[in-house]
Amino acid sequence: MPLISLTTDFGDLYPAAMKAIILGINPEVQIVDITHSIRQAGIREGAFALYSLVQYFPPGTVHIGVVDPGVGTSRRALVIKAGDEGKEQFFVGPDNGLLIPAACRLGKMEVHEITNPELMLKSGISATFHGRDIFAPVGAYLSKGTPIDAVGPEISDFVNLNFENFGIDGPFLVGEVIFADSFGNVITNIPADVILKFSTFGSQIEVNGRKVSFVQTYGLVGQEEPLALIGSHGFLEIAVNKGSAARQFGLKSGEQVVIRVF
Amino acid sequence: MPLISLTTDFGDLYPAAMKAIILGINPEVQIVDITHSIRQAGIREGAFALYSLVQYFPPGTVHIGVVDPGVGTSRRALVIKAGDEGKEQFFVGPDNGLLIPAACRLGKMEVHEITNPELMLKSGISATFHGRDIFAPVGAYLSKGTPIDAVGPEISDFVNLNFENFGIDGPFLVGEVIFADSFGNVITNIPADVILKFSTFGSQIEVNGRKVSFVQTYGLVGQEEPLALIGSHGFLEIAVNKGSAARQFGLKSGEQVVIRVF
Amino acid sequence: MPLISLTTDFGDLYPAAMKAIILGINPEVQIVDITHSIRQAGIREGAFALYSLVQYFPPGTVHIGVVDPGVGTSRRALVIKAGDEGKEQFFVGPDNGLLIPAACRLGKMEVHEITNPELMLKSGISATFHGRDIFAPVGAYLSKGTPIDAVGPEISDFVNLNFENFGIDGPFLVGEVIFADSFGNVITNIPADVILKFSTFGSQIEVNGRKVSFVQTYGLVGQEEPLALIGSHGFLEIAVNKGSAARQFGLKSGEQVVIRVF
Repeated sequence: MPLISLTTDFGDLYPAAMKAIILGINPEVQIVDITHSIRQAGIREGAFALYSLVQYFPPGTVHIGVVDPGVGTSRRALVIKAGDEGKEQFFVGPDNGLLIPAACRLGKMEVHEITNPELMLKSGISATFHGRDIFAPVGAYLSKGTPIDAVGPEISDFVNLNFENFGIDGPFLVGEVIFADSFGNVITNIPADVILKFSTFGSQIEVNGRKVSFVQTYGLVGQEEPLALIGSHGFLEIAVNKGSAARQFGLKSGEQVVIRVF
Repeated sequence: MPLISLTTDFGDLYPAAMKAIILGINPEVQIVDITHSIRQAGIREGAFALYSLVQYFPPGTVHIGVVDPGVGTSRRALVIKAGDEGKEQFFVGPDNGLLIPAACRLGKMEVHEITNPELMLKSGISATFHGRDIFAPVGAYLSKGTPIDAVGPEISDFVNLNFENFGIDGPFLVGEVIFADSFGNVITNIPADVILKFSTFGSQIEVNGRKVSFVQTYGLVGQEEPLALIGSHGFLEIAVNKGSAARQFGLKSGEQVVIRVF
Repeated sequence: MPLISLTTDFGDLYPAAMKAIILGINPEVQIVDITHSIRQAGIREGAFALYSLVQYFPPGTVHIGVVDPGVGTSRRALVIKAGDEGKEQFFVGPDNGLLIPAACRLGKMEVHEITNPELMLKSGISATFHGRDIFAPVGAYLSKGTPIDAVGPEISDFVNLNFENFGIDGPFLVGEVIFADSFGNVITNIPADVILKFSTFGSQIEVNGRKVSFVQTYGLVGQEEPLALIGSHGFLEIAVNKGSAARQFGLKSGEQVVIRVF
């Protein structure tokens, strides 16, 4: 059975419309919700959610991502095929950067604009819900084997987005919060290999001026104590054992994090 | 693969009991959650959720709806078959109006009371959870092809419910909020064709005394600015670009909305 | 199609990583979310969620439960096969008691430690997310028919947990809140047969010093009025008709409840 994933800022109700359309076109597909709780119009947050999970999905998966503040304006709609030959995954969504980090992570990318009306909702395209009217049916047809060339012409001037805007300044690593998960764990854009060049497990680091232990897992510090660790996403993460680092440190996605190593 | 949708006010945990029962009876069925976040006992809200999505589901879908404040009392349980011959969808739930707007939307309706104990949970019927004990197994059997006549006798005196209680009074359209979605968009019961008879995109209208632009999509007004649009459900909707109209206008489902056109 | 259930305290996003792994190994499996909203590290709450639903799942179901404050420490990982011969269900998760009440409920139990690295994530085991790296793949292999002996050696010294710590003291039944559901219903660990020995429907009982009616269903008391009933889980439950008993009585899971019968 083929697999479609969904990543949106739709909250409740609207994802079901996408699923109804998808299963009407391809009744045999498995649908996995990555999340529908991306902050409204949080393109970088949505991009991270997809990026952090893409490597766990099997070849052939079609990822539909819809965090789309420009819906109904002139922004383009995209399909991307990415990965090693024979092991590609597909991405469907708006041309605002949302899909790029995940697709890049898989390697070689081929990007097409969605222009073929045959693959869109037959009963008409609304100005506000392309998730249902364009992205869901296009994703469903891809999951049935429709080739990417049938979707529309290849393009190269898509909107880019990456998480690599961190800096190193002496003993300071200056990064950004790219996601705060539902536990209140604060995920930064500082990759595991960068922090491990400067610090070792068991030592102390400073997070925005506050000392915390850099350890391997939550249970190694006391309850309600903060810690830094390499999270399961492969990035430096600030956490509080059985508590919320987002709350203790007052950090939200998009905000700056200054790490001092010793 | 056949398709079952679920619409309830059950929140967490209880929907899984329904799914366990359904998949025990029909392991091949696809289950789509429409929502489990209907306000407790919010029959009109639940009716709208189902009504707004039914047209996107394929023929043969079985919709189980359980917003059921009268569970365990004498209220009846229903199955409805609705739609053009050969393209019918099915509805299962309490006789309190919940299923009616969605079923009506598909056209011709045939309503049966659920009386056949063979189609209910074998281990006994609780007084509080007919979603699990009656509606889930009945829906699962329908999805396997059990004919509606096997469920129980046809009836015609079911509880009705419709969204058509809006009024037109000179330049005023007086309607009702039928749903506030998880974005804070406020969906009224004023249909697209009615508002478009009185106003055109690009003009101003008044919502409860406050001027807003009537436009085609969110991105056409500034951030945090209110707007009115034809939502993806086909009704007049009040929204705030990247904000919550429910909060800005203090509107909840069931409340009155007065629209003035110019 | 085989069936896997998931019960975690992961909130959003992380369950999708588990589903990606599972469907990569067994694309034909049905996945049911029991809940991902268990209070962080709420082992007893998670154990109750699984326990309350297990009887509704078909034979062969694989339940993956991950409420795992000890992840990355020396706590063991388990697989359990439980139930009558030919009708067994399987349980996968940490050795902290989480899986035990549900497995016990099915009867005969066989417990194995997970030691076979062939059944774990090939790309390496993180210190923080065994749900994705160990429990998801092991569960997926079990759902494809991998025998329990291939998982690791049988053990008998697993961590136990039960809900039977209630006491009877004259007219007082002293129990514990084991779950507060998303309606605010407060589920105690006092079984139906115990309360029914002391009280009958229609009578009054006292809950922490406050009189409430002991009735068969919600609709039998006025709106916002409290009641006690035998909930759909088979335990004494404190509820408020169209309201929240958790709020009205100030009760959370783990707290003591004193019931007085007359």
